[in-house]
Amino acid sequence: MKRLVIHDPTLRDGQHAVRHGLGLTALRRYAQAADAARIPVVEVGHGNGLGASSLQVGQAAVSDDEMLSTVREALGHSRLGVFMLPGWGTSADLRRAIGHGAEVFRIGVHATEVTLAERHLGFLRDAGVEAQCMLMMSHMASPEVLAEQAARAVGYGAQAVGIMDSAGHFLPADVSARIGAIVEAVGTVPVVFHGHDNLGMAVANSVAAADAGAGILDGCARGFGAGAGNTQLEVLVPVLERSGYTTGIDLYALLDAADLAERELMPAPPVTGSMSIVSGLAGVFSGFKHRVVELCAGTGVDPRDVFFELGRRQAIAGQEDLIVDVVAELSSRATDS
Amino acid sequence: MKRLVIHDPTLRDGQHAVRHGLGLTALRRYAQAADAARIPVVEVGHGNGLGASSLQVGQAAVSDDEMLSTVREALGHSRLGVFMLPGWGTSADLRRAIGHGAEVFRIGVHATEVTLAERHLGFLRDAGVEAQCMLMMSHMASPEVLAEQAARAVGYGAQAVGIMDSAGHFLPADVSARIGAIVEAVGTVPVVFHGHDNLGMAVANSVAAADAGAGILDGCARGFGAGAGNTQLEVLVPVLERSGYTTGIDLYALLDAADLAERELMPAPPVTGSMSIVSGLAGVFSGFKHRVVELCAGTGVDPRDVFFELGRRQAIAGQEDLIVDVVAELSSRATDS
Repeated sequence: MKRLVIHDPTLRDGQHAVRHGLGLTALRRYAQAADAARIPVVEVGHGNGLGASSLQVGQAAVSDDEMLSTVREALGHSRLGVFMLPGWGTSADLRRAIGHGAEVFRIGVHATEVTLAERHLGFLRDAGVEAQCMLMMSHMASPEVLAEQAARAVGYGAQAVGIMDSAGHFLPADVSARIGAIVEAVGTVPVVFHGHDNLGMAVANSVAAADAGAGILDGCARGFGAGAGNTQLEVLVPVLERSGYTTGIDLYALLDAADLAERELMPAPPVTGSMSIVSGLAGVFSGFKHRVVELCAGTGVDPRDVFFELGRRQAIAGQEDLIVDVVAELSSRATDS
Repeated sequence: MKRLVIHDPTLRDGQHAVRHGLGLTALRRYAQAADAARIPVVEVGHGNGLGASSLQVGQAAVSDDEMLSTVREALGHSRLGVFMLPGWGTSADLRRAIGHGAEVFRIGVHATEVTLAERHLGFLRDAGVEAQCMLMMSHMASPEVLAEQAARAVGYGAQAVGIMDSAGHFLPADVSARIGAIVEAVGTVPVVFHGHDNLGMAVANSVAAADAGAGILDGCARGFGAGAGNTQLEVLVPVLERSGYTTGIDLYALLDAADLAERELMPAPPVTGSMSIVSGLAGVFSGFKHRVVELCAGTGVDPRDVFFELGRRQAIAGQEDLIVDVVAELSSRATDS
């Protein structure tokens, strides 16, 4: 039976659902529970990673330093993971995280912009810590392009490389094709899949990734995350075990950790609401939701039409100005007709 | 593109999540919304079907007669469906439902007990209404046995026959094998799949059922149902359309119906909690949960162990006395060791 590595970004990606507001007690208690379950990697941070706490994307309740030292102290078995988006974080942030004992480093870039990770991956490789590269919004690139980007990441020093289904757009066949192409391109380097549940497919997509050769899979307790949430970790693990894989994780302790997460980290577990479904279908970053709804108010424009139009225009995070254009256009079209 | 029939038991199976407490206004408003979305069949009733309102399984807020006449009046396009478990309901209940204009009748039986449906299916066939037979807890029977049971149901007069994944135990390959065997056995009669989401697989399982030849798929708005809930209808429909099927349902009106359901039918959408996951893994009716937790209190026995042991003993609904035996046994084992 193939052993898979489970990577748990509950305390990082989940932060998006609570405006980066997790406190030290919550971080410590979940990290201890995850450690007791023997989850291999526990990732912590601001939702947008190291150095991202800011007015633009939200200020975290706790500094990176405090988060890292608290979770580091809570872990005895699990390795400590961090995430960084170049631009938000810098080499100085990576250096500080190394100082705090972080062991697994992920550099996230848009699916086609792996060059942005080159310098950081090199720095991490030289520092002797594990460097991974994650290609985000990966539904916007073909299997061939992703395979080529992944191979370049390995060339830069990545010891694992993977894709995030950031918009929750994939169906299992989409994942199989992409993971399969990347596995073929990068050989023995482990390939990662990180799912979102907008179309109810996060667990099925993760199993498809494993079947296509992925070696590292992400999941969050109760799916903790923005909108429809991430792959539900405590569902994923036993489903993988039933599908012929091993994870080394203790099921009951994992369920206990998820129960604790539901009680202590979140006001309520994620729900797949209609706008999450639409953003998944459209392949658009669900973080646009509030701005879309706000801009549509009083215009007679259906926010769902805006999402589908943003999808056609391949909008990505940072292009919030496109929303204004689309709403204005749809509004004038409605007036004309 | 193959046209699939979507069957919506939100107002029947969803009742389990609210102790059969849906009022007339809620029933009317959801039925109108479902009708506007052109959902082909809208099923209504007590969670356990016609005639089941009782002290044992819970009294419905509204009588069968009131539910049927209210929903009948609300529907202009959708057909009106009902469900009945022989023993809880009788031919007199079927006759009354026919009088109220119900058009699609489902008789539910345990996976291996199709003979219990014979008389009712014959009665419905003679009455000229559509009769369907649903094999419940279908993970407890092999594909071969289910195919044989389904063929017998068709012999009794069923115009559609299907399986319910009552415990939410299946993975897609399990569904493919069972639906495939039934399709082969019953020829041109439509085959039905009804999923539950305990292992996060309800949508993926439903797509697998369609791919294996199923012609009728069930889903509930926001997955409304007990425990982890049913297949989420407004996710299922667009995923099927992306997978090459048509349903004739209007997506935006469907999303509106789901939004209404979330606001007006349920205190909160279903969450896949730890006991739901365990009951899905164990293949045990999740309705046992409260009794299991209650009986374990103070004994030191882990309710999760009880579920897995009930699964090994193939416990089915109605065998609540088995829970007492299992808790006592596990408790004495713990004391001995």
